Amino acid sequence: MTTVAVVGGGQLARMMAPAATTLGVTLRVLVESPEASAALAAHETVVGLPGDPDAVRLLLADPRPDALTWEHEHIPDAVFDVAAELGVPARPGREALLFARDKIAMRQRLEALGLPMPAWRRVETEDEVEAFLAVHGGVGVLKTSRGGYDGKGVRIVRNPSHADEWLAAAAEGGAALLIEEMVPYTRELAIQVARSPSGEVKAWPLVESIQRDGVCSEVIAPAPRLTPTEQADAETIARTIAEALDVTGMLAVELFEVGGRLLINELAMRPHNSGHWSIEGSVTSQFEQHLRAVLDWPLGDTAALAPVTVMTNVLGGSRTVLETAWPQVSDPGAKVHLYGKGVRPGRKVGHVTVMGDRVDDVRRRAAHVAAVVRDGEQS
Amino acid sequence: MTTVAVVGGGQLARMMAPAATTLGVTLRVLVESPEASAALAAHETVVGLPGDPDAVRLLLADPRPDALTWEHEHIPDAVFDVAAELGVPARPGREALLFARDKIAMRQRLEALGLPMPAWRRVETEDEVEAFLAVHGGVGVLKTSRGGYDGKGVRIVRNPSHADEWLAAAAEGGAALLIEEMVPYTRELAIQVARSPSGEVKAWPLVESIQRDGVCSEVIAPAPRLTPTEQADAETIARTIAEALDVTGMLAVELFEVGGRLLINELAMRPHNSGHWSIEGSVTSQFEQHLRAVLDWPLGDTAALAPVTVMTNVLGGSRTVLETAWPQVSDPGAKVHLYGKGVRPGRKVGHVTVMGDRVDDVRRRAAHVAAVVRDGEQS
Repeated sequence: MTTVAVVGGGQLARMMAPAATTLGVTLRVLVESPEASAALAAHETVVGLPGDPDAVRLLLADPRPDALTWEHEHIPDAVFDVAAELGVPARPGREALLFARDKIAMRQRLEALGLPMPAWRRVETEDEVEAFLAVHGGVGVLKTSRGGYDGKGVRIVRNPSHADEWLAAAAEGGAALLIEEMVPYTRELAIQVARSPSGEVKAWPLVESIQRDGVCSEVIAPAPRLTPTEQADAETIARTIAEALDVTGMLAVELFEVGGRLLINELAMRPHNSGHWSIEGSVTSQFEQHLRAVLDWPLGDTAALAPVTVMTNVLGGSRTVLETAWPQVSDPGAKVHLYGKGVRPGRKVGHVTVMGDRVDDVRRRAAHVAAVVRDGEQS
Repeated sequence: MTTVAVVGGGQLARMMAPAATTLGVTLRVLVESPEASAALAAHETVVGLPGDPDAVRLLLADPRPDALTWEHEHIPDAVFDVAAELGVPARPGREALLFARDKIAMRQRLEALGLPMPAWRRVETEDEVEAFLAVHGGVGVLKTSRGGYDGKGVRIVRNPSHADEWLAAAAEGGAALLIEEMVPYTRELAIQVARSPSGEVKAWPLVESIQRDGVCSEVIAPAPRLTPTEQADAETIARTIAEALDVTGMLAVELFEVGGRLLINELAMRPHNSGHWSIEGSVTSQFEQHLRAVLDWPLGDTAALAPVTVMTNVLGGSRTVLETAWPQVSDPGAKVHLYGKGVRPGRKVGHVTVMGDRVDDVRRRAAHVAAVVRDGEQS
């Protein structure tokens, strides 16, 4: 029986399970707790942390997995060492993953590839921040090179003193900092590609990602009102990155659209929130494709199945009702996904996907069902 | 957490697991062995037989399931008694299930409802068989009332003496027998409906089911070349049965098409092979819908997503290669489903679904991939 081992117990690992069941693949997941989102859905679970070599050995025990992969980028080097020792291919590999984990390494590498991105520089002092602000309109986006996500580790800076605290933390051994120009983007887009070790690459349609409070709120696939070249430009960018960085599995490239130009914002080397629409909306979902790619199986068709698919996140609120709201979900076309996670305000606890013909209509439907799942029907 | 308990460890229970994971429902399955198809995919498993009251009590233990359902109709009465004692709704219920388990009871009931079906009668003696053959062109289809499936328990009879052995077995306490006219059907069709305890009913498009050696080989959805009334006629038949028999969950009605007329062949009160196309081919799959129906949640949209969807079964052969054939599956649009079952000749071990625009093209593609999965690429 083909087996894939996964590090990480969140919803991204959880959503690999239905795809694995269908493909006849056993999914063995290293989860941080038996209550983790992925624990119930996984075929086999090992409870432990990736920093614990014993847990990693259990994850890779006989029957030996055919591949080892991740649902996040924070993988200790020791995991790669154990995988190499046991002969289990780690995909994506250590070198590729660095560029999804470290924004300075990523910016340097993409710059060397000549790919389009916001102006940026590494900063260690207030003077460096000041110099950057001086030539970029007095404003910049300060980021920690590591550990940021969903708006964490990102701060708008209009005065060098705004960077003081973070600079001090970096100087004391914290994550290094970079500053980027504040791009006057019209919207955020994202593209997903999958790449297999054999070199096959497949791209999905470019999507629009709508953020609220730094967190992805909605994804529209394909992105409406694209210029004639944007899909091809985005595919070229993503393919270039996947090939140059030797990415295997899924790669998400988050992009700023500035006029008709695309600038690279972030990378993720795993299934990504901006690709959840593909579960129903594409012939092959990003979760199925990720498994196929890390197993070096032929990749599936990435065509969209409807003129428009909208995915809306369900973020935990003060009274998230989740599955108790099911009887109130009156839209028969809405696909509700619940992650089986404890609710905290702002936490992603599920999503809703709707397919249809008209963007406005489909967005309205998805948002309504997401609100019902979160708060119950408003009477 | 919402929980659904299922009796039966085959691929039908297995294919409920991806739907349950997505819906945020815990699927607890009573499997006959830890190697059963459903065991790996289920969220929680209890190993045992439905005839064992202790196993059934474990299946229904706290946290108490919200509903109890089945992937087959062979449910001992004691299971219903335990469910009633513990307050777990059994769906479909004991009375409904009888009509899916006992062909004589089913024929009697449907006849009373005035529904169209082949001429039939219960037979206990050679004389009764002879009398039936005399008025139905000298040929009939002898069936055991219980226990038949996939061509088992069915025999063509052209001479009363062909029935001797079965008549003797029935007289000695075996399953009662019925004989049906041999219908000169042009093809076999099937329709799926789901019905919830609240009375909501949804029907899928009528499909064509192509049998080989008494086993479903291919399903084409929707059935090509339907007359203007066949979809509505089939929906009326299925809805009438679902309501009159108080079916909850999925109901499959297998039909003979004779000219433009539909005659009822068999019933199944569960997800059915003729509905597997709906996993990719419909907004809501029969597996998701079954869970929604037995939980009395609103039912999902049953529209087809492509002009044509074809499902081809993978039957075990002398050298079924299954997942080792994956690298040879060169059709990126083919959706391969493997059930994780041991291979025996003729056993259903997986299926392949392809969606597209032209029936011939889609059939050819699905058949090719099913052959590759079964036997490996022919060089």
